[in-house]
Amino acid sequence: MTERHTPIRVTVWGENRHEKTDAVVQELYPDGMHATIADGIREYLGDDAVVRTATFDDDEHGLTEEVLAETDVLTWWGHRAHKEVDDDIVDRVQEHVLSGMGLLVLHSGHFSKIFKRLMGTTCSLRWRNEDDRELVWTVDPAHPIVKDVPNPIDIPQQEMYGEFFDVPTPDETVFISSYTGGEVFRSGLTYKRGRGRIFYFSPGDQAYPVYHHPDVRRVLANACVWATGPVERKLPMLARTAPVLSAMDAG
Amino acid sequence: MTERHTPIRVTVWGENRHEKTDAVVQELYPDGMHATIADGIREYLGDDAVVRTATFDDDEHGLTEEVLAETDVLTWWGHRAHKEVDDDIVDRVQEHVLSGMGLLVLHSGHFSKIFKRLMGTTCSLRWRNEDDRELVWTVDPAHPIVKDVPNPIDIPQQEMYGEFFDVPTPDETVFISSYTGGEVFRSGLTYKRGRGRIFYFSPGDQAYPVYHHPDVRRVLANACVWATGPVERKLPMLARTAPVLSAMDAG
Amino acid sequence: MTERHTPIRVTVWGENRHEKTDAVVQELYPDGMHATIADGIREYLGDDAVVRTATFDDDEHGLTEEVLAETDVLTWWGHRAHKEVDDDIVDRVQEHVLSGMGLLVLHSGHFSKIFKRLMGTTCSLRWRNEDDRELVWTVDPAHPIVKDVPNPIDIPQQEMYGEFFDVPTPDETVFISSYTGGEVFRSGLTYKRGRGRIFYFSPGDQAYPVYHHPDVRRVLANACVWATGPVERKLPMLARTAPVLSAMDAG
Amino acid sequence: MTERHTPIRVTVWGENRHEKTDAVVQELYPDGMHATIADGIREYLGDDAVVRTATFDDDEHGLTEEVLAETDVLTWWGHRAHKEVDDDIVDRVQEHVLSGMGLLVLHSGHFSKIFKRLMGTTCSLRWRNEDDRELVWTVDPAHPIVKDVPNPIDIPQQEMYGEFFDVPTPDETVFISSYTGGEVFRSGLTYKRGRGRIFYFSPGDQAYPVYHHPDVRRVLANACVWATGPVERKLPMLARTAPVLSAMDAG
Repeated sequence: MTERHTPIRVTVWGENRHEKTDAVVQELYPDGMHATIADGIREYLGDDAVVRTATFDDDEHGLTEEVLAETDVLTWWGHRAHKEVDDDIVDRVQEHVLSGMGLLVLHSGHFSKIFKRLMGTTCSLRWRNEDDRELVWTVDPAHPIVKDVPNPIDIPQQEMYGEFFDVPTPDETVFISSYTGGEVFRSGLTYKRGRGRIFYFSPGDQAYPVYHHPDVRRVLANACVWATGPVERKLPMLARTAPVLSAMDAG
Repeated sequence: MTERHTPIRVTVWGENRHEKTDAVVQELYPDGMHATIADGIREYLGDDAVVRTATFDDDEHGLTEEVLAETDVLTWWGHRAHKEVDDDIVDRVQEHVLSGMGLLVLHSGHFSKIFKRLMGTTCSLRWRNEDDRELVWTVDPAHPIVKDVPNPIDIPQQEMYGEFFDVPTPDETVFISSYTGGEVFRSGLTYKRGRGRIFYFSPGDQAYPVYHHPDVRRVLANACVWATGPVERKLPMLARTAPVLSAMDAG
Repeated sequence: MTERHTPIRVTVWGENRHEKTDAVVQELYPDGMHATIADGIREYLGDDAVVRTATFDDDEHGLTEEVLAETDVLTWWGHRAHKEVDDDIVDRVQEHVLSGMGLLVLHSGHFSKIFKRLMGTTCSLRWRNEDDRELVWTVDPAHPIVKDVPNPIDIPQQEMYGEFFDVPTPDETVFISSYTGGEVFRSGLTYKRGRGRIFYFSPGDQAYPVYHHPDVRRVLANACVWATGPVERKLPMLARTAPVLSAMDAG
Repeated sequence: MTERHTPIRVTVWGENRHEKTDAVVQELYPDGMHATIADGIREYLGDDAVVRTATFDDDEHGLTEEVLAETDVLTWWGHRAHKEVDDDIVDRVQEHVLSGMGLLVLHSGHFSKIFKRLMGTTCSLRWRNEDDRELVWTVDPAHPIVKDVPNPIDIPQQEMYGEFFDVPTPDETVFISSYTGGEVFRSGLTYKRGRGRIFYFSPGDQAYPVYHHPDVRRVLANACVWATGPVERKLPMLARTAPVLSAMDAG
């Protein structure tokens, strides 16, 4: 009844730069944010997923053709080094997404090359880093991504992300957040691109323990299930084709 | 360059019930809420619009076939008497919307028969009437409805309307609001139905002076321009039609 | 990893009127169209589904509260008797869809009370019954509904349904058809309404053996899987709620 | 009542390569396809538009910062030289679109750098160049782009473009085409990106007189009106902002 790969093969990509220089981040994420994100997905999916990590400093950013070919869902967290990401690797990730690989873009990943490439817009937004409390409200209550997620998710301390968020009209708006400062943000959005599924989810910042939050981890796990692509990866291609109807058919 | 009627013929429909019994409402809206809404539209559109009003207690609720045939945009505010609205009039309004008449549904109008009829859903939501401050954020900054509207609109006192708002996926999300209590609401939504354009706008309550707020009035005026239907009103109809291609064509 | 009911409980509703009076239909569908549709779903879903049927002439059209409460997906084929369907039953079906039951609306069901109720539009279209050949093209190649479905589906003889199809903007356009006569039709459309999923699929007419077509049966089976609602059925309801943020929170 | 620039300043961009080497194209478009497209827009808009042209071989492809800053709507036809278009010019055009300039992408322009950049997908499709007849059906009958356009537009000879067209879910589907060979294609699509409006329209090939077709010219003229951006061009930008609500407000 399914053509999806099981267990789901998840690759958690982390930029892993703040972790090397910032004591606050090191304390919150001693093994790197990617490790915590991977643990969160494992916690909820258990044997239904095989989760590995890759980081900026790995060879080819850890995203070789082999790794991507064996990845059903890729998650992307980056911030400081967006511009240093190799364009050839971005091409490769884009091609895999359009072929059917799922992609979760997290928080400051809104400004990553891969997200801007797939959206076609500036992906800019308002922001402020002053300990706002974020409430993440569900606006699509039967969506598989909100399964067992409380409404709202209450995140005591967070960076504020506010509208206007310059992205295309989403296929689905799953979450909208408010902040202590009064701002709002479309914080959970889905897009189909080619044969792939993309989920942007804004909660998560290096300076706060957001990826330890049980509800945030639940959302990431649910989103991995939702975004899992079909077993057969296939890039849409230009194709010259013969007519289906001939004069004889039509007559 | 336009097939729209000018000046725009607007009919402001008001239930006009609270105004008859509630001293607070009478003080805020001495001539009825419909009169204030109509003035707000006139204030910004001037000679570009001809605005009249109609109320529940008028004959046929003031919405005769003749009135609707000469209405480019109808605005709808109701609350207490939703269930008493005549089903035949609802049929008539729906037919005009599907034929091309614009419709602005305001605040508690989310629970009107005509809105539920056009949406197909329960149109339910969360609410609380405790003097929340509402901030109305623009999420579609080049939309004609937000022309000259500050971002956010700041409404000092309002009823809270919160998600989940049970409506279909909107064609466009123009505004999202936050409230002092932390809730969010998709407060400005557009829909096409048949040949007609619909705008739902949530700010506006009988117990607060919201329809005196200059930015709210500006939005209503802009929305009248946006929703103005084509001159030729035409209901989509079932039609038996001949083939365009014959065997000879195809050969 | 799932909150869906398994096996999927499908109820196939058939008007079963043509079958009683029309020799052509009787020959094509000796046990009624509903029986053939049910067999088609069983053929592909096997033990993953439990399929029963209900018809217009059954008590309460076979759609009692008990039946609907135990139905994950309802399929609807009607034509001649649309207007005779009991409004109370339509209310009940609508409530179940908005609560999370899946609904497949088939062919001439576009003019059923339940579909018009959920869409809010006239649902009118062009038509012609002259043995057109229909080609059903996939425009969403990674959608679960097109799994193992050839592109195009080739239906040798069909009634023509053509645009303009007066329905709201669909959430997803899965199929678009062409006909020998040159017309086009958005023939596979998905909608979310409340917590329920709706799929409209136009191939299928009483005068042609369309529900014996293996690819059409495959689509129906796939759509049952896709439309299966969550185990917990819940109607969105108006609710007064307390603020999440208090002055102390905000301070 | 409008913030749009009038008359509309249109720049018609043409690759102008086929015209230099191909006798068939030279006969159909003796002054270049861009000249014919520009004439078509002038024919219907008259004094409401000022139309100029620019081509690949002009300095900076004719698309200097000054030209774009004075362009309300840019139309783009290219085919043979897509890959030779300067990336810096593509950056510049993208920035203007996201700031509010309208963009019409024509026919083989689906594979242009600028369209692929704005869509984020492969933009691939099926094709065949064998004198198909194309019928262009309206599926959004009250859209301003279809004003005074017959339904269907009948184009006697055309290249076939067929689904799957690998583009994001459009904001609006205005036209769907069928071909003699039985294929279908979403031939008129709108997208909002940033503050700009984009219309993709597939009819038009160098080997056929499509840009002399009165209905095709009408669509292009209507689309220029529809796509005209706001007077104030503004790129969405990342911005650090102060909270709207302070503790005192909330208290």
